[in-house]
Amino acid sequence: MDSKVYIGVDIGGMTVKFGIFEDQKILKQWAIPTRVKEQKIASDIAEAIKSGCAELEIPEENILGVGIGVPGNTRPDGFVYNASNIGWKDYDLGAEIKQYLNAPIQVGNDANLAALAEYWVGAGKEYSSFVMLTIGTGLGGGIINEGRIVNGMMGSGGEVGHIPVNPEETRVCGCGKCGCLEQYTTATAIMRMAREAIEAGETTCIESKTPTAKDVLDAAKAGDAMAVKVMDQFADRMGQGMAIIAAVMNPEAFLLGGGVSKAGDYLLDLIRPYYNKYLFKGCVGADFRIAVLENDAGIIGAAKLAMDAFPVGWDNVAE
Amino acid sequence: MDSKVYIGVDIGGMTVKFGIFEDQKILKQWAIPTRVKEQKIASDIAEAIKSGCAELEIPEENILGVGIGVPGNTRPDGFVYNASNIGWKDYDLGAEIKQYLNAPIQVGNDANLAALAEYWVGAGKEYSSFVMLTIGTGLGGGIINEGRIVNGMMGSGGEVGHIPVNPEETRVCGCGKCGCLEQYTTATAIMRMAREAIEAGETTCIESKTPTAKDVLDAAKAGDAMAVKVMDQFADRMGQGMAIIAAVMNPEAFLLGGGVSKAGDYLLDLIRPYYNKYLFKGCVGADFRIAVLENDAGIIGAAKLAMDAFPVGWDNVAE
Repeated sequence: MDSKVYIGVDIGGMTVKFGIFEDQKILKQWAIPTRVKEQKIASDIAEAIKSGCAELEIPEENILGVGIGVPGNTRPDGFVYNASNIGWKDYDLGAEIKQYLNAPIQVGNDANLAALAEYWVGAGKEYSSFVMLTIGTGLGGGIINEGRIVNGMMGSGGEVGHIPVNPEETRVCGCGKCGCLEQYTTATAIMRMAREAIEAGETTCIESKTPTAKDVLDAAKAGDAMAVKVMDQFADRMGQGMAIIAAVMNPEAFLLGGGVSKAGDYLLDLIRPYYNKYLFKGCVGADFRIAVLENDAGIIGAAKLAMDAFPVGWDNVAE
Repeated sequence: MDSKVYIGVDIGGMTVKFGIFEDQKILKQWAIPTRVKEQKIASDIAEAIKSGCAELEIPEENILGVGIGVPGNTRPDGFVYNASNIGWKDYDLGAEIKQYLNAPIQVGNDANLAALAEYWVGAGKEYSSFVMLTIGTGLGGGIINEGRIVNGMMGSGGEVGHIPVNPEETRVCGCGKCGCLEQYTTATAIMRMAREAIEAGETTCIESKTPTAKDVLDAAKAGDAMAVKVMDQFADRMGQGMAIIAAVMNPEAFLLGGGVSKAGDYLLDLIRPYYNKYLFKGCVGADFRIAVLENDAGIIGAAKLAMDAFPVGWDNVAE
């Protein structure tokens, strides 16, 4: 096969996902386990790319670029400042992979790449500047400004889960500080708030003493008073957080992804009045959308990162 | 004179400032009164540019571009959504000036242009991404990301004075909402907090019952307990606000300008520990600097805006 291709790689705590792309078309996608403890990730990634391309009979020199998403703070050349999930600190992932693979590499933060994917082929296609929020066990963020990721000095652009919204908070966030936005605006937070309400003796139709976020969302939709109260607290902080981001970036849209976003329009309608309560009037008009790419966003965004960094013919231009 | 020039215009509530630029060199600078009530601003600006160029014997066709800073939310083509100081709402400043002047026009928010000026020839020269905060009677902001202004959908990028930091606040901000950052982090806020402390009977070496921000800053530097407490409150909120911005943008630096920034290193040293208290660890390392351009920042940034939009030869390229 004589295709020129880009490779998208998405490093997660459990698996590393791969996609071989010819423009927007995914020729092949697969995954391997993330071998963190064995410190084999770099060689595993290189080997997987080689064998994946070999299966399609694509020679290594036809790889125009490899984009890699990392769950942490990174530099575009592949230096990882910090990725605590997989135990990396000041680790030069890019240099190590290059020992095993002869292809140009560009690395980015996974949440930022999810936003780039939505910009390219997803719910962000019609915007040039938007903010994507991934609401799961944590709150991830990615910012697209005029078609490009806001990467920031240390790759921490869009780390909106750690916006300090509450100086009075005494509970400690996973990051070590107190009062971060993600302490109130995640599936984890919904579960905690519901558990606390149940422990405090509030009546609810939910039977479990430790309900999931979905239990709480379903009960809230059905009008359960405790669940509605919890979701209002969630939405109030999320509205404040989004109004904060709006005052900084004035984006055209917010895209919501992650597990909690499966609540769809219910979630958007819940957040909107709180957002408007806090919003600076000069920033009105941003759209609210649910992200569409789900689990493939990582490899798609990573491939697009490589395409932008190494466009067809870039090596000729450099000569 | 056969120079090709750019014009920088800075519209303020009292005066409109002008500069004629040949690259970074200011050939001439002057100001005229802002005739708001007479609705003469557009024709006044056109006439001033013409007569200024005539004095230097520069023909109108040698004007490569005019950049204009407006104290409000604008679109690059000159449409002003809102500029409450001078009474504009949905006013097409660009189109009206073009009735009187045959030159390409680009319009921006004045705080954003001050940041662009610092990026070009001031304290932001060595950075590609930074945030400028102008601390005066209000809190203005301008964001440079990879060398370009973050303008936002409605020109409200960098409106950091209206970041909602305190949901508990009952006092109303000038914008109509409660709990905006600029309610705590301006010369106005310093004066209010000092007045309230004095009214509450706190002892201080300050003799005035209504001290200026400079009175409070000077007293705090001298160790006056009331003034120190007021400045700590100011610095705590400013630190929170800057840590919020850091979690969104992860900039390389913060530049502080405006009247309060005349306190210099004292101010930076005061804010830094509070900033670090709130800062996400992935965003450490941003520099703190005092801005340097002061009153000329507006015309310099406006001229640079025009240069970026209409580079030498751009009209040939378009043909």
